[in-house]
Amino acid sequence: MKLTKVLLTLLSGAMILFAHEGMFLPDDIPYKAAKKAGLKLKPHQIFSVDKPSVSDAIVQIGGGSGSFVSSQGLVITNHHVAFRGVQQISTPDNNILENGYYAKTLDEELSIPGYRAIITKSNEDITPRILTNDINDQLSPTERTKKIEANIKMVVEEAEKEAFIKAQVKSMYNGLSYYLIKRVEYEDIRLVNIPHRAVGEFGGDIDNWMWPRHTGDYTFFRIYADSDGNPAKYDESNTPYAPKHFLPFSSKGVKEGDFTMILGYPGSTERYLTANYAAYTANTLYPQRITIFSDVLAIIEELSAKDPAVRLKLISMNKAFNNVLKNNQGMLEGFKNLHLIDVKYAMEDELKKNAKNGEFTAILDEIMQVEEVKKTTYMRNFIQGWLTRLPTLARTANASYRWTVEQEKPDMERDMGYMNRDRQNHLRKIKPGMLNYTEAYDKALLNYLLNKATELPENMSLDIIGHIKTQYPGKSMSDAISTYIDNIYEGTAFTDLELQKKSFDMSNKELLALNDPMIEFVKILEGQSKGFRDVNDDIKGKLTLLMPKYFEAMAAASTGDIYPDANSTMRFTYGVVKGYSPKDTVHYDYITSVEGMLAKQTGENPFDLPADFLEIASKSSPAYTDNYLNDIPVNFLHTTDITGGNSGSAVMNARGHFIGIAFDGNWEAMTSDWLFDEALTRTISVDARFILFVLDKVTNGQRI
Amino acid sequence: MKLTKVLLTLLSGAMILFAHEGMFLPDDIPYKAAKKAGLKLKPHQIFSVDKPSVSDAIVQIGGGSGSFVSSQGLVITNHHVAFRGVQQISTPDNNILENGYYAKTLDEELSIPGYRAIITKSNEDITPRILTNDINDQLSPTERTKKIEANIKMVVEEAEKEAFIKAQVKSMYNGLSYYLIKRVEYEDIRLVNIPHRAVGEFGGDIDNWMWPRHTGDYTFFRIYADSDGNPAKYDESNTPYAPKHFLPFSSKGVKEGDFTMILGYPGSTERYLTANYAAYTANTLYPQRITIFSDVLAIIEELSAKDPAVRLKLISMNKAFNNVLKNNQGMLEGFKNLHLIDVKYAMEDELKKNAKNGEFTAILDEIMQVEEVKKTTYMRNFIQGWLTRLPTLARTANASYRWTVEQEKPDMERDMGYMNRDRQNHLRKIKPGMLNYTEAYDKALLNYLLNKATELPENMSLDIIGHIKTQYPGKSMSDAISTYIDNIYEGTAFTDLELQKKSFDMSNKELLALNDPMIEFVKILEGQSKGFRDVNDDIKGKLTLLMPKYFEAMAAASTGDIYPDANSTMRFTYGVVKGYSPKDTVHYDYITSVEGMLAKQTGENPFDLPADFLEIASKSSPAYTDNYLNDIPVNFLHTTDITGGNSGSAVMNARGHFIGIAFDGNWEAMTSDWLFDEALTRTISVDARFILFVLDKVTNGQRI
Repeated sequence: MKLTKVLLTLLSGAMILFAHEGMFLPDDIPYKAAKKAGLKLKPHQIFSVDKPSVSDAIVQIGGGSGSFVSSQGLVITNHHVAFRGVQQISTPDNNILENGYYAKTLDEELSIPGYRAIITKSNEDITPRILTNDINDQLSPTERTKKIEANIKMVVEEAEKEAFIKAQVKSMYNGLSYYLIKRVEYEDIRLVNIPHRAVGEFGGDIDNWMWPRHTGDYTFFRIYADSDGNPAKYDESNTPYAPKHFLPFSSKGVKEGDFTMILGYPGSTERYLTANYAAYTANTLYPQRITIFSDVLAIIEELSAKDPAVRLKLISMNKAFNNVLKNNQGMLEGFKNLHLIDVKYAMEDELKKNAKNGEFTAILDEIMQVEEVKKTTYMRNFIQGWLTRLPTLARTANASYRWTVEQEKPDMERDMGYMNRDRQNHLRKIKPGMLNYTEAYDKALLNYLLNKATELPENMSLDIIGHIKTQYPGKSMSDAISTYIDNIYEGTAFTDLELQKKSFDMSNKELLALNDPMIEFVKILEGQSKGFRDVNDDIKGKLTLLMPKYFEAMAAASTGDIYPDANSTMRFTYGVVKGYSPKDTVHYDYITSVEGMLAKQTGENPFDLPADFLEIASKSSPAYTDNYLNDIPVNFLHTTDITGGNSGSAVMNARGHFIGIAFDGNWEAMTSDWLFDEALTRTISVDARFILFVLDKVTNGQRI
Repeated sequence: MKLTKVLLTLLSGAMILFAHEGMFLPDDIPYKAAKKAGLKLKPHQIFSVDKPSVSDAIVQIGGGSGSFVSSQGLVITNHHVAFRGVQQISTPDNNILENGYYAKTLDEELSIPGYRAIITKSNEDITPRILTNDINDQLSPTERTKKIEANIKMVVEEAEKEAFIKAQVKSMYNGLSYYLIKRVEYEDIRLVNIPHRAVGEFGGDIDNWMWPRHTGDYTFFRIYADSDGNPAKYDESNTPYAPKHFLPFSSKGVKEGDFTMILGYPGSTERYLTANYAAYTANTLYPQRITIFSDVLAIIEELSAKDPAVRLKLISMNKAFNNVLKNNQGMLEGFKNLHLIDVKYAMEDELKKNAKNGEFTAILDEIMQVEEVKKTTYMRNFIQGWLTRLPTLARTANASYRWTVEQEKPDMERDMGYMNRDRQNHLRKIKPGMLNYTEAYDKALLNYLLNKATELPENMSLDIIGHIKTQYPGKSMSDAISTYIDNIYEGTAFTDLELQKKSFDMSNKELLALNDPMIEFVKILEGQSKGFRDVNDDIKGKLTLLMPKYFEAMAAASTGDIYPDANSTMRFTYGVVKGYSPKDTVHYDYITSVEGMLAKQTGENPFDLPADFLEIASKSSPAYTDNYLNDIPVNFLHTTDITGGNSGSAVMNARGHFIGIAFDGNWEAMTSDWLFDEALTRTISVDARFILFVLDKVTNGQRI
């Protein structure tokens, strides 16, 4: 059977892992395999706690990644990573986001509030300090969760005694190990250069996730520090930060088969989840989420159409929702095309056969029981979560409310995120958080989510719906929701930045005494959310016991290099420059040209390159010309294994020089978060020569 | 300037003609170039008036082409060429079109009424007999047209004195030459084998014009003749026709670079029309036609949705309109992408520079004046023409009416198409013409067209609209039209086949005495159409003088092999097997596989292969496996120059063996009718091995 042939190919691939698959911990890179693929650096040149290494040039920034490319704190990241920050400093009259920006001197560099550049200083396996001996089978699942959390808090507290260190403890390998990661966070970030939006976002939502691609997705920031080179708030007296290491720009370019590597911050992958959960995600979650994302996008589009100022405020949201919508649609398509659920089940069936004494079968059964609980509560938790996360005022009021509640406990007993160490973080977020506040959007979101909540099954109903129903007994549910929301927004004082700040100094009693209807709203939600978190603690406690065993069984059956799922910590991945074949007879070459970019130009957004670019692109520029193309290159493909969060990562050659910047994955491999398929999975990156070309010829940014 | 570079590439290509460009007359093949490309036959082996040659194996059939592949009259053509004929013999209960058909014995072969297989016997330049000495500058344009027509009629009449010969005179090289073509028409055509519709039409309208392609677009007919091997009406006593030559089936397959050639019947091309007319076509005609096609398709879909029997009757119309709609949309896209209008103007500018004494400039000016008249009358003539061509009853009534009018003149003075020689043709069409008659569709078409006619400018208005207006003075125009149509269809007797036949024996007076409202309707139309034809005769007369000069100027500037525009006469074209690159980084290989076909399978129309095919396709079939693919091939690409009408043409190798069957062109080269671009233009053909595979394994049709 031919379909079985396809399935077996995938299956065997999945079992043995592909040659270049993996997002490895920086202190555990697959040196032998990477060297074979062409790597010319030693492991300690890539990551070292005490010596300068490539990792010192890598930052986490704006939800993505970036890298130092000068000794003077210059950082390059993606246009789409910088987007939200630049949007905040754009106005309809001075639309930097639209027109681009280039600071001719240090003085002209513009502060980007709310952005931070995070450098990882160390990465240490501290499993014995987290999975302590007192965590044993006698504990209930909830007690296990609490105990692990308490241990984490202790480790973090101790680590943060060191000056400027922010610590985090992350579980790796499905909870088999725990790592302490020490980081330094720089918060004086300034914009140096962003290209015209039509270059930086060329192709927009249409080309997003697609190849062939022609997007100049880059932006330059500069990181500033105090006179000692330490993190400091924005201050005119700050000076450019001198990184321990930066990546030299290479204009030698790439050719098919060249080694490439990336150090960056991939967000999350699901490579070690069960087939059962994969099936649920594909069959139920993605379709549900696609509906919700489409609905929210319709709200955004309706409001944006009415007012250009609102459009600018919601532009970043619009982009983000379009991105996840297209992602989830691609996931659905990929799950189907690659028979992914069948493959996952087949993998587990193999493990069942191999694992001794049916142990794996028993573990899988237990995991599936927990997953059944997760499934029934998922949509309830999703809506409840969004109610306090998506509308701006509900989010800030919720943070304030929970802060005052948690303050009444000793620091180490508070929920994570509401401890003393988190105070600054909350305060710091207030101003940027309110920059895009739009009452109409806030209200429309609440209205949509509350109406959506009325569709939940009886046994999963939200208290807030009952509350609204009893408050307006005469009205239909949808009228009652509208009226309730109108009353909240008429009565709330939480639009006031000062009040938001002050609330972090209040007791819970003082906060409630404000009688602010937004606080009352989040109080009702929080009354029930606490219970939801208890259920989650029970689920977590069970899974921290079961999932490491699931991982061990998979790792034992694998012949490849083992790595943990992504979790926003620094990872190393490598591969080679390579095209691919998306389907029968179709072959994609590995690199695109400026001529191909011009061929897409229609003059209409998102294919509306500005006149200065068009003029210069139509002339030849030998210094930036690729021999193979006989043209200036724009984007190229390589087999490195990345995911969301890696956006903005430097692509390095075998010697660690900057040859491009990663910004996307390809449509056919959207499901690589679940299962890596080397035949199809590609990273799409901007060629360094395109960046140099635009800087030199269009921007006249020779200073950079 | 890069855009100019693209333009210059196209331009230089257009001026020198591409290596393999051309649809050559069979007695004037570019032997030297074709031999260089690989041809192993001599010109007389391809076409000869007295000796058996490849051309004896080639037929024109069902609006397309076909070829003999056995000594027993077996003809292979496209599924989509056979479609209309097979639809006529399909019913909801015995849906041959849907389920496929295979006649296990000669007795089971099914008659396809209305289809003819035409063999070209000779092809002779008779220009002096048409452009006689009395055609000189003294004549008015209309007189010139009339005189040329009179000469054509005389030549045809004389040629048809020969038994079984049907003659036609065709102008070639823009009217520089006239050819007498003698043909024999066989009319006892029977269905031998048609694959399941899901195989024969796999991909449907979605894949139409697209590559990669996986369509089994073939059908086998058998041609029957009387006991002397001469054409005869369907009769049980007829026997399979023994052709003078047939093409042996080759299962050796194709590889990149292999020589391929086609002899077939391309319908029409516009390679020697002016830039001015190309611009009008792209900017005005295509958009107008797209609107009309879409509107008619909406009518078809609405009626089809209501009744499966109506769906079956309109299925062929639906397919045809979808095809032209997609074609015209592709044309629009291609004109834009390839900057075609700029290129055509640039070509003319070159000619203006080169041609002596500004003669070319003067000719071009004169042509453009004539074209202005054509432009203003185009839409009027289009609607008027459709009114008597698209609705079944209006078409038949119009034929009867014009027949009775013309009968009153001497034969040689009648309009062409209404001479004694055409009588049988009219009678023969009556029954198949009525097979798909659907009153609701007929009425909806008339209604749409008449309403459309009300949008014509005042000076182009149709008399029929004025007539309807005065008949129902109290009503709105659209109500008046509806009522008028209702009255016609209530009152007409033209649904009666016997009446239709009888009308060809009536005098005009007798026909009018029927007082049939459909006759009255076409009489009003014809009253005005006669005037339109007079305008056209004037236009034609001017163009028969000017267009040959335009052609001569183009031919003089060309360094390639010269050929005339396609005009449904037999043509030779050659090329090589070759993939192409549709855009930056994307490369299409030259051949598709059954595995790629299975990958498209969704279970939903048009990707719903039947179970027997799926089962067999999933097994290996070494006898039909291509080495390069390591799979059974489905379709392949080659650079031969074809257009509509070539559908069903045998693709032959260098020795004239059958290696495949042409069925489509590719999307990127839709505009090749206007300008051939060898980098992009490809013919899409079914691989002979796929046909043999399905015949052997799925159909069990070893008899064939």
